[in-house]
Amino acid sequence: MEIIEFRPTFDQLVYTFGGSRPAMRIKPGTILKLWSEDAFNNTIKSINDLASEKVDLHHVNPQTGPFFIEGAEPGDTLAIHIVDLKPARTYGVSSTIPFFGGLTSTDRTATLQDPLPDTTWVYDVDTAKNTVGFQSRFGDFSVDLPIECMLGTIGLAPSGGEVRSSLVPERFGGNMDSPEVRPGSTIYLGVNVEGALFSIGDGHYRQGEGEACGTAVEGAMNSIIIVDLTKGGAPTWPRIENDDFYMAVGSSRPMEDSWRIGQLELVRWFQELYKLHQMDSYQLLSQITKAPIANVVDANFSVVIKAAKNLVPEVQAYSGIHASFRDKAKELRL
Amino acid sequence: MEIIEFRPTFDQLVYTFGGSRPAMRIKPGTILKLWSEDAFNNTIKSINDLASEKVDLHHVNPQTGPFFIEGAEPGDTLAIHIVDLKPARTYGVSSTIPFFGGLTSTDRTATLQDPLPDTTWVYDVDTAKNTVGFQSRFGDFSVDLPIECMLGTIGLAPSGGEVRSSLVPERFGGNMDSPEVRPGSTIYLGVNVEGALFSIGDGHYRQGEGEACGTAVEGAMNSIIIVDLTKGGAPTWPRIENDDFYMAVGSSRPMEDSWRIGQLELVRWFQELYKLHQMDSYQLLSQITKAPIANVVDANFSVVIKAAKNLVPEVQAYSGIHASFRDKAKELRL
Amino acid sequence: MEIIEFRPTFDQLVYTFGGSRPAMRIKPGTILKLWSEDAFNNTIKSINDLASEKVDLHHVNPQTGPFFIEGAEPGDTLAIHIVDLKPARTYGVSSTIPFFGGLTSTDRTATLQDPLPDTTWVYDVDTAKNTVGFQSRFGDFSVDLPIECMLGTIGLAPSGGEVRSSLVPERFGGNMDSPEVRPGSTIYLGVNVEGALFSIGDGHYRQGEGEACGTAVEGAMNSIIIVDLTKGGAPTWPRIENDDFYMAVGSSRPMEDSWRIGQLELVRWFQELYKLHQMDSYQLLSQITKAPIANVVDANFSVVIKAAKNLVPEVQAYSGIHASFRDKAKELRL
Amino acid sequence: MEIIEFRPTFDQLVYTFGGSRPAMRIKPGTILKLWSEDAFNNTIKSINDLASEKVDLHHVNPQTGPFFIEGAEPGDTLAIHIVDLKPARTYGVSSTIPFFGGLTSTDRTATLQDPLPDTTWVYDVDTAKNTVGFQSRFGDFSVDLPIECMLGTIGLAPSGGEVRSSLVPERFGGNMDSPEVRPGSTIYLGVNVEGALFSIGDGHYRQGEGEACGTAVEGAMNSIIIVDLTKGGAPTWPRIENDDFYMAVGSSRPMEDSWRIGQLELVRWFQELYKLHQMDSYQLLSQITKAPIANVVDANFSVVIKAAKNLVPEVQAYSGIHASFRDKAKELRL
Repeated sequence: MEIIEFRPTFDQLVYTFGGSRPAMRIKPGTILKLWSEDAFNNTIKSINDLASEKVDLHHVNPQTGPFFIEGAEPGDTLAIHIVDLKPARTYGVSSTIPFFGGLTSTDRTATLQDPLPDTTWVYDVDTAKNTVGFQSRFGDFSVDLPIECMLGTIGLAPSGGEVRSSLVPERFGGNMDSPEVRPGSTIYLGVNVEGALFSIGDGHYRQGEGEACGTAVEGAMNSIIIVDLTKGGAPTWPRIENDDFYMAVGSSRPMEDSWRIGQLELVRWFQELYKLHQMDSYQLLSQITKAPIANVVDANFSVVIKAAKNLVPEVQAYSGIHASFRDKAKELRL
Repeated sequence: MEIIEFRPTFDQLVYTFGGSRPAMRIKPGTILKLWSEDAFNNTIKSINDLASEKVDLHHVNPQTGPFFIEGAEPGDTLAIHIVDLKPARTYGVSSTIPFFGGLTSTDRTATLQDPLPDTTWVYDVDTAKNTVGFQSRFGDFSVDLPIECMLGTIGLAPSGGEVRSSLVPERFGGNMDSPEVRPGSTIYLGVNVEGALFSIGDGHYRQGEGEACGTAVEGAMNSIIIVDLTKGGAPTWPRIENDDFYMAVGSSRPMEDSWRIGQLELVRWFQELYKLHQMDSYQLLSQITKAPIANVVDANFSVVIKAAKNLVPEVQAYSGIHASFRDKAKELRL
Repeated sequence: MEIIEFRPTFDQLVYTFGGSRPAMRIKPGTILKLWSEDAFNNTIKSINDLASEKVDLHHVNPQTGPFFIEGAEPGDTLAIHIVDLKPARTYGVSSTIPFFGGLTSTDRTATLQDPLPDTTWVYDVDTAKNTVGFQSRFGDFSVDLPIECMLGTIGLAPSGGEVRSSLVPERFGGNMDSPEVRPGSTIYLGVNVEGALFSIGDGHYRQGEGEACGTAVEGAMNSIIIVDLTKGGAPTWPRIENDDFYMAVGSSRPMEDSWRIGQLELVRWFQELYKLHQMDSYQLLSQITKAPIANVVDANFSVVIKAAKNLVPEVQAYSGIHASFRDKAKELRL
Repeated sequence: MEIIEFRPTFDQLVYTFGGSRPAMRIKPGTILKLWSEDAFNNTIKSINDLASEKVDLHHVNPQTGPFFIEGAEPGDTLAIHIVDLKPARTYGVSSTIPFFGGLTSTDRTATLQDPLPDTTWVYDVDTAKNTVGFQSRFGDFSVDLPIECMLGTIGLAPSGGEVRSSLVPERFGGNMDSPEVRPGSTIYLGVNVEGALFSIGDGHYRQGEGEACGTAVEGAMNSIIIVDLTKGGAPTWPRIENDDFYMAVGSSRPMEDSWRIGQLELVRWFQELYKLHQMDSYQLLSQITKAPIANVVDANFSVVIKAAKNLVPEVQAYSGIHASFRDKAKELRL
């Protein structure tokens, strides 16, 4: 197994899925040790740094990559296992960007109202306790919250020659902002272009489901990731597997469509895994799926549909690649 | 504590929130031992009973109640604790009603396509193993699933003189179809009319989040419930508390509005509980809330927003009524 | 033809569809000369009257009626022809009610933002010029706009024992807030309960499509209406016919569902009128329908789908009842 | 005034907004005489040509262009006047592409139902009568409909380095599928990249509002267009002006957001045109706007908001460029 370390310079950061020249070419099975910049390009460092002054929405969610995966062709499946994620800074930040977020009007859900106050919170990272510290901005309340690292963005180049902002979650993955994209998870994405052009970014030290205010505890991240390739079998929408769940992610608007997409993708996956008729797969999953919302703030809203492995007979998805990743991962933690 | 048992006759069943004469008057603090009919009025008993032939959508989700709570006035809070739920039949059923459900067009999301096949699944209840048995209808797959009883409907009379079908989830609770309405939960509902007019029904032996196919494992239910009253303090939307979480439920369309409602209600609740500025409550909850979907199939779609108690300092909601319920409940299990 | 005049007292006003005792019983074919109060119950009379102080959202859109139509049974079609509408006051008013309207967050599209300023505009009625005068509140701009009277609400009792606020547009008609409900239009509504229980209200001296700010130029109205009954043939959703168009109205959320409902209802109507296969009706209407939005501010959003009669061969809908109404109407104008 | 004619070869067709090298550079004020291929790339020529066999959704809506406008910089306004549109073939076609359209489930509004039958209609162009002929496919009904040519797509390169499929309507214009994009209209689009990169395509011989079945009467088109540049003043969303209306177009999902965007854009425009406070602009437009739906079938849904010029005092938008276009256009009709 080849191990490649990559820490992009500021000039090497990209802000789209598709449309950028590969940072490097890698072989399937490569272990990547990556550093990623935070969603704000490190422009927000204190509570006095305001998003409206520092953040350009065309230059957020800087991506580390893209990586050209040798041999990847349209219709193939890229399997990406997240071995480990660790904060790469001693603080994380969160901001309520004007007219961005879940409990505000936006450029789409447009109203004539004034924006919410542009406010920044800084969370100190305590490595020993593995916490980030919330400190109220308009009062005197503080609480330490467990660090639970995840990647807001993980994606490939889109199909049809499109190039999408790294703010977008879609079929190709992207800015799904799901807490399920965390250590121990294997993400399956359908390849759209030669080389797949895989990238990550938007590290979160923790995030609630929905990412209500529009930003998580944002921070630079050190990631260990294994990237492998399965010929053919591209899922229509992102699938995720961990030790406990089979999952699918839908990203669209309105949010019921995100749900429909994810639920249908999991119905199809269960048809494959258990040779079920679609009506039986629909029925079975109706009684066992969890349906956590991932984000309600991005260009598309994302919903995760997940089925617990312990409720159904054991089978192997994608020839057991997840189990194989788990074995390799044991030696690789940060 | 007074204990009242009530098993409605067929003629006593009602199909609306509001609009019905009370089944009886009870004092706050009363323990109710209730039997409720299944969502289909027991018309579906075998795989040969089809929803299109047996089910009248104006007579589903029969309610046990309503109960007139003495002293309840508009603006008060009804606190309902679910002590225990147990299957009252040896089988549960689920059906894909034509043009009803999540992965089909409906009377609202109207298309010209044919409906999905009208199909019924029967789940045998195994009391010893505490399971219901899924058996595929178009193949030879079976699996036993844990019984996890919940109530699909729990609600009060609406405001403004409205009467709503028992298919509707709304501000008054109703057909939220959330797995969080289960033993150990306390539901807080704002009172709209004198006497509150509380009812339950639509027992589910288990249900996935979203209730994808439109119906859960539906079954008659034996419920033990404590109903109490707090003067004033009516929440705008349903709140739920259990030992582990504070929750709020939004029900509307499109589903992002259900999410907004629930998230805002929990922001308001945390402002009260922790004396937080709304921006701090918004920020804190952004990083800690879970956001499971409840249903994407009813007249409104329901989303639950929940915050884990173990992440925040201990406080008492509604003067600690939940803890008090938990004490009483210990003696009352079925 | 019997002519009945009715001007309800304040105490006779009702605020729901369904749930009220009939104001009177009438025979099919009766001509009604009705007075209706404005949407605000005449509480807003000057620019100093603010909606937040004067308006109770449970008591808006007061209805004149309901009328029990003799012989009307579930499944029948009530055909209502609007002969004439005339302002019954010398002024109309419009208000931006806090958290109500199209370019503001609402109780459903909930945000943490402040409401827009609670503002009232008063429009003077000039009978001679047939105009209402717009006068800016924050500057010095004025313009006279043509009076184009319409009824915001026209509806029947709902099905399933429901009672709905007069703020709601639905299958039963109701608060559709469509400019198409104006003199010369025949509205076809499916009867849900014995007697149909027909009512009107919410007169508008004029309104833009969408009713963007939440209220039209609201005013008390004198209406002449003919109410007739066709046995059977109940449309699923409201249909409208005038000399120039066949129309259907969908009311739901999100707004694409309102559109789907209306488009499908017109596809079905054209199948009936022209004996078309549903695919041909779908195709033909795709190329000829107009699709004006009616409201984006009520409990449901309403969309009108309309097909011009002059593009298609002449046929008779509902046995030519509209033409017959038009003949009778000639003698009846206000 | 320079006149440039351009008829792209098959190899010169492009399928995205942004991402393509300019077909040519033109000066502001240039008159373009353009030929554009139909949406299906002329693969559908008879009722036996099925979309599922002939159409690749990554290669539809071929664009003629893009044109690099000299001097155009981000923040500028491109003003495009449509002088004339004429069918360039003797037939137009329409198809119900499986899982594409308004009264079917789609890849987003995903269901488990079978698709509608893949059906093609061919419309003969009668130049003398200026009609296209509808002929039913499942019966014996035919009717001639007036030709009313429009362009389904008209757009610029997106911002932020994005490249979008020519199926997408957005801020940059694109696949709005609005009947308002017809002879006599001036479209104002905000420039995002140097040179603007303007293109057109997707000619429709006629289309109903909503484009219900997913396709209009599609046909190759001869267009005469004047393209001019105004420095600065970029509208946030597309604006349209013709002799009778000021208009704005919103494109998003759900459709109420498209409406909000369009309504807000017109509120802003009226604030500029008439120096109105936003509340007065909101109020005035609430009483006078028309709100026709453009499409409910594309990647975003589009809604047009329009205010009649004859209801308000005469003013000049964009320094009267529309009137100037109208003068030039008189000499240029096809």
